[in-house]
Amino acid sequence: MLVGHADDPRTGLEEGLRLFLETAAEDPLIGRVRSGDAHHDLVRIVTTDAAPLLVRVAEHLETAATAAWPHVDPATRGELARVLARLAVGYVTMPPEYDDSPAAIAAGLSVLLAPR
Amino acid sequence: MLVGHADDPRTGLEEGLRLFLETAAEDPLIGRVRSGDAHHDLVRIVTTDAAPLLVRVAEHLETAATAAWPHVDPATRGELARVLARLAVGYVTMPPEYDDSPAAIAAGLSVLLAPR
Repeated sequence: MLVGHADDPRTGLEEGLRLFLETAAEDPLIGRVRSGDAHHDLVRIVTTDAAPLLVRVAEHLETAATAAWPHVDPATRGELARVLARLAVGYVTMPPEYDDSPAAIAAGLSVLLAPR
Repeated sequence: MLVGHADDPRTGLEEGLRLFLETAAEDPLIGRVRSGDAHHDLVRIVTTDAAPLLVRVAEHLETAATAAWPHVDPATRGELARVLARLAVGYVTMPPEYDDSPAAIAAGLSVLLAPR
């Protein structure tokens, strides 16, 4: 997703976020976490015990960002990957707080976060 | 915090985030949420039912950002406030995933997120 829009980081980020948020909105397991109806062990994986998941998601995102945006400062790529991982897992436990569609949320986030 | 460093958004944001993260690390109620030992109703306020809290935190942050950074694009201030609210509440449910101190986390986030 990021590499497919390597010359337009905002669009690449927006499409990746939109796909994630759309998937999250339709996933039955995430739906149960969001509605407070999930098993305690599952909730722990995205709350108390989220560290391994956050690290793994951030590592994947950092690899993708490095491939797509080789000219962006590595520290910025790493920090962006960690923030995106936290926001992504946060959208599993905390449903969108406004009536925004996944596309609208993705657009807002990508304008703010895409490397310039 | 933001207004006190109106001419240096990165420092203002860093000090605000550091104070929040230090407070979160010491707060006994947040400690119980982080350790998975909190009452179900309290956990809901920062997960399933987090929307009112997220909106309220974002509104406060947007007011502070507007006072401190009148020249920053209002849409950027609003989006930044919403992202900061999600990250802040996310640090209540998801403890820091690395061994970073509050100061180190705040420094990384503020470099990425401070308006330029």
